[in-house]
Amino acid sequence: MRAVPRPGEDRLPSGSVAFLPDPLLSQERYARAAWSRIAEPSDVVAHRLISAVGPVAALEAVVQRSESALDRFRPRLAALDVVRDLEIAAKFDARLLVPGDPQWPAGVDDLAAPPYCLWVRGPADLAAVTSRSAAVVGARAATAYGETLAADLGAGLAERGFGVVSGAAFGIDAAAHRGVLAVEGSTVAVLAGGVERAYPAAHKNLIDRIAEQGAVVSEVAPGSSPTKSRFLQRNRLIATMTRGTVVVEAGLRSGSRHTAATASDHSRVVLACPGPVTSPASAGCHEMIRSGQAALVTDAADAAEALGRLGVDLAPARRGPDRVGDDLGPLDRRLFEALAHRERGIERLAVVAGLAEHEVRAGLVRLHVRGLALRSGEGWRRAPVGRR
Amino acid sequence: MRAVPRPGEDRLPSGSVAFLPDPLLSQERYARAAWSRIAEPSDVVAHRLISAVGPVAALEAVVQRSESALDRFRPRLAALDVVRDLEIAAKFDARLLVPGDPQWPAGVDDLAAPPYCLWVRGPADLAAVTSRSAAVVGARAATAYGETLAADLGAGLAERGFGVVSGAAFGIDAAAHRGVLAVEGSTVAVLAGGVERAYPAAHKNLIDRIAEQGAVVSEVAPGSSPTKSRFLQRNRLIATMTRGTVVVEAGLRSGSRHTAATASDHSRVVLACPGPVTSPASAGCHEMIRSGQAALVTDAADAAEALGRLGVDLAPARRGPDRVGDDLGPLDRRLFEALAHRERGIERLAVVAGLAEHEVRAGLVRLHVRGLALRSGEGWRRAPVGRR
Repeated sequence: MRAVPRPGEDRLPSGSVAFLPDPLLSQERYARAAWSRIAEPSDVVAHRLISAVGPVAALEAVVQRSESALDRFRPRLAALDVVRDLEIAAKFDARLLVPGDPQWPAGVDDLAAPPYCLWVRGPADLAAVTSRSAAVVGARAATAYGETLAADLGAGLAERGFGVVSGAAFGIDAAAHRGVLAVEGSTVAVLAGGVERAYPAAHKNLIDRIAEQGAVVSEVAPGSSPTKSRFLQRNRLIATMTRGTVVVEAGLRSGSRHTAATASDHSRVVLACPGPVTSPASAGCHEMIRSGQAALVTDAADAAEALGRLGVDLAPARRGPDRVGDDLGPLDRRLFEALAHRERGIERLAVVAGLAEHEVRAGLVRLHVRGLALRSGEGWRRAPVGRR
Repeated sequence: MRAVPRPGEDRLPSGSVAFLPDPLLSQERYARAAWSRIAEPSDVVAHRLISAVGPVAALEAVVQRSESALDRFRPRLAALDVVRDLEIAAKFDARLLVPGDPQWPAGVDDLAAPPYCLWVRGPADLAAVTSRSAAVVGARAATAYGETLAADLGAGLAERGFGVVSGAAFGIDAAAHRGVLAVEGSTVAVLAGGVERAYPAAHKNLIDRIAEQGAVVSEVAPGSSPTKSRFLQRNRLIATMTRGTVVVEAGLRSGSRHTAATASDHSRVVLACPGPVTSPASAGCHEMIRSGQAALVTDAADAAEALGRLGVDLAPARRGPDRVGDDLGPLDRRLFEALAHRERGIERLAVVAGLAEHEVRAGLVRLHVRGLALRSGEGWRRAPVGRR
C-alpha cells in the first residue's frame, strides 16, 4: 500500500482534487475510502474501532499491527491503493461521500454499522432525494403482474415527488427504476459490488441511465465484486436510506423480506402489495401482511399516504359511487323499496313496506322532498332516475 | 287472520305436529311464526315489544290495537295465516326453529334484533354445524380467480370440520357452497326470501342440493319475496351465525363488506383474501385489510387457524426450503462464500473473505465439521452438494 497521509499532508494526486473539496478532510476521506476496500460492510471489528478512534487512527492501528484482533484486515492491506481506487472512480464520474457531507443520506446513520463511505455516480443529491423517498423492491423472478405494478408504483411515487431507491436487480427492482425513468423522476440504484461495475451485466444500459438521471451508489470500493454477503449488506442501505420500503412481489424466502425486516427494525414504514393467492411470487408479501410486518398497499397513492407527510399525502377515499337511498333511514328505505315504477296506493305500500299507513304518508313526504317519490293518480310511484 | 291460540289451546292442524314436538310451546311457536310474517326482520318496534312482553303477548297487543305505535303491523295482519305458512313449509320439508330449540344457532342471539324464528329445510343440525363454522361470502360479479378460491376455501374448511355458511348468490357464494358439496361437507344457505323460494331462480338445483345435504334457512315466512332490505338483514344472520366471515372477492361497495362489518361489530373474526391489485373485484378486500378491518388469509389452512381452536387449528408454517449456510454465523458465512469449487489456499481465502488467516483456519474447521468444506491439496474447497 501507499502510506497513509499524515495530518496536513495530502498524498492524493492533483487529478483527484474533485473528490476533496475541503483539503482538511482529505485524511478522513482517504481513510474511509481505504476502509471500504479492506473491511467488509458491517464488519463488527472495523466498526467498533472506527467508532472508538475514528477512521484515520483506526487505519493507522491496522498498519501498525498494534492489535491481533485487527489481523483480518491485513491480508487486503498489501493490495490497498486508495489513489488508484479514486482514479477508477473518477473515470466513471463517481465521487466519494463521507458522513457529514451535505449530500450524505442521513438515514443510513441509523444503522449500527453505517457504511464507511459511499461511492456515488450520477447527478442526484442523495440527501435531498432520500429525504422524501421509498424503496421499491421485490423478487428477481417477478411475474408480468408484479413488474407492471412495480413500474406503476415507481412512476406514481416519482410523480408525487418521492425518490425511488432499489437495487437494479432483475424483476421488480428494474421495473421500479424503469417506471421512474419513464416519468423523468429521481431514482437511486444501490449496488452490491463496485459502483463502476454494472451488475447484473444485462442491466448495464439501465444502470447507466440511472447514473445519468439519478444516482448509482455502492459502499464497497471500485472493482469489488458483488458477493452474497454484500447483497445482504446492500439491502440494509436500501432499507435505511429511505422513509419506507414497498415490497411488490416476494417469494417466501426472498431477499426483499430481509430488506423489509431491516426497514422495520429501523422504524421505517414497511408496505407490501398483494397479488393472487395462487402466485408463489406474492406468498412472501401475503405472509408479511398476514403477520402484521407490512401494511397492504395497492398503488402509489396508498404508498404515498403511508410514506409521506401526515395529512398532506392523502390517498383518495376508496369507495364506490353512492347509490340511491344510501343515506335514507331504515324505514324510509323500506318505503322507497316498496315504491314501484307504476302507481301504488298507501294501503298497498303499507303492506309491502311493513309500515303503518300514517308512517307511509309521512315517509312519502320525505321521499318526495328528496325527489325520490312522485304522486301518481291516487297513489305514488318511484321518481324516474332522470328526475331525481 | 285466524285467532291467536290461547294458552292450552292448539289451533294448528294435526298435520303440523312435526313442527311442534312440545305442545306446551305451540303458542310461542305460533306467535313467532306470525311475527316472521307481519314484521320486517330487525323491526325496532317489534323487537322492543317482544323483548318486553314476549312474542305471544306482543302479538295479542297488535291484534287488540292497544298501541298506535303498533299500527305498522296491522296492514299485514289481515292476510296473516300461520297455519297456511306452516303447511307451505311442510310441503318443502321445512321446519320451524325458535330460540331455545336444541338446533337453534346460538350466535344469532348476539344480535340486538335476533330473528323471530327460523324456517329451515334440510337435515343439518344448525346448532352443531354453526358451532364450528365460517361464513364464506363475496361478490356476485366474481372472477374465475375468486370462484376457484371460494370453492377451495369451502372444500378446505369443510375438510377441517367447519360448517360453511353463505347466501346462495351468484359468484362467490355459490362457489363456496359447491366446494363444500363436492367434499360432502356441511353447508348452510341463508336466504333473503321464503325458505321454499329458490333465489336466484337459476340456483334452484344448487339450493335443493344444499337442502338435501345441509340446510337452507330463512327468517321470513314462506312465500315472502327477497327484497333489498331483507338481503341486508339476511347478511346479519350469516355474520353472527358463524365464528367468522371470510370475504373472498368484494368490490368497494359490495354487500359482503356489510356482512363483514356486522361480523366485526359482533366480535367475530373477519378475514379477507387478497387478489391482483388490478382487479376491482378484490378492491373491497384490499381496503378491508388495509384499514385493519380484516386479516389477510390465502387459503383454508390460514382461515382455519384464525377461526378455529387456539393452538389446535394451526396453519403450517409459511417458509421456503432452507438454504445452505442459512444458520451460519456472519463470519463463517463470509468464509463459506469465499470457498470455491476448486482449491483455494488460506491466504487467498483470507483476502476474499476479509478475515485474518487464523480466523480462516478456525472457520474452516467449523465448516468441515458441518460437511460444507473439504481439504483439497494444499488448500480447501466447497463440499459438493451431494456430500454435505
